[in-house]
Amino acid sequence: MGGIPEPVSSLAAALSRLPGIGPRSAERLALFLVQSKPETVAHLAESMVRARKETLECTNCGALTKSIPCPICDDHQRDGSVICLVERPLDIFSVEKSGSFKGKYHVLGGKISPLNGISAEDLNITALENRLTREPIREIILALGTDVEGDATSFYLAKRLATTQVKVTRIAHGLPAGSGLDFADEVTLSHALQGRRELST
Amino acid sequence: MGGIPEPVSSLAAALSRLPGIGPRSAERLALFLVQSKPETVAHLAESMVRARKETLECTNCGALTKSIPCPICDDHQRDGSVICLVERPLDIFSVEKSGSFKGKYHVLGGKISPLNGISAEDLNITALENRLTREPIREIILALGTDVEGDATSFYLAKRLATTQVKVTRIAHGLPAGSGLDFADEVTLSHALQGRRELST
Repeated sequence: MGGIPEPVSSLAAALSRLPGIGPRSAERLALFLVQSKPETVAHLAESMVRARKETLECTNCGALTKSIPCPICDDHQRDGSVICLVERPLDIFSVEKSGSFKGKYHVLGGKISPLNGISAEDLNITALENRLTREPIREIILALGTDVEGDATSFYLAKRLATTQVKVTRIAHGLPAGSGLDFADEVTLSHALQGRRELST
Repeated sequence: MGGIPEPVSSLAAALSRLPGIGPRSAERLALFLVQSKPETVAHLAESMVRARKETLECTNCGALTKSIPCPICDDHQRDGSVICLVERPLDIFSVEKSGSFKGKYHVLGGKISPLNGISAEDLNITALENRLTREPIREIILALGTDVEGDATSFYLAKRLATTQVKVTRIAHGLPAGSGLDFADEVTLSHALQGRRELST
């Protein structure tokens, strides 16, 4: 009686399960939607269902794709001897946006995190090892985050892959572009110093 | 090639049209959705379409409702002699939550704002005047915001309704609950002083 009508509150409840949407924003979005044009709402709903239906996980590398194998695995122009290992499918888009990598990818699907109950068995490591036997891979670049779990996972993988012939590298940690020393924390600065390179003139 | 698959980017584009959702959050939400269970996505899409379809605007007061007239207009237990005038349908839910109003409502549908091209003719004022002729209304409480447009609209309505027999009041402006003088800006404080009331002992 006098409250938010039931269909609106159900919608708000469904919206509040999305990441980064709290109960207040969910209510605001639901009220916005029920006051939008019916076509707009139908379009959004259809885009959602269609995107979910048409987006697959590449069975080879784990990337999000419309077709299997994904366009990157299927691209013979790309360098199949280098694999960039990332945590989540969306990390591929970040690396691709940088335009500085022309090899292939592998999605790990998480990071080793005993606190969250994620161990090495939960990650796509066996799939990666299988790829090593059938693809001409010479280098695996570990492009995981720089937090504790990222560090632990990188060290675990380096150790596990040491028995293979493949070279294992890790992306550089240091100062982000356009930043000064005064904004860098001590860990970043210590990584930047350790990773120093000689300037070629 | 290697970018976000088309259905995902279309979904992100549709999501970024929602209020408070920027391009980055839209992309994050779209990627979250395409990695969720298909049932979850279908449920959200259906809730959206259903909420839009089943939510109507009360033809009498403008509130959002499942049935016309809305439960508040239809409730003969409520005091039909007092109308609380609000800007948007959702403001009704805020007043209802406070539990301190037992009269009826009228939704203005906006505030007079020459900068945004909204004049008095764009608001549901004629509908309100029509209600005055057929409902036993004795008092209209203006419950608009305290910004410049809210002030201008309140003064306009007070003037326009002065020719009728109805009493026009405006909700009090002052210190919010649980706040101290040190947090109040000077306009709030001046309103609070002007609106002072004698304490009955």
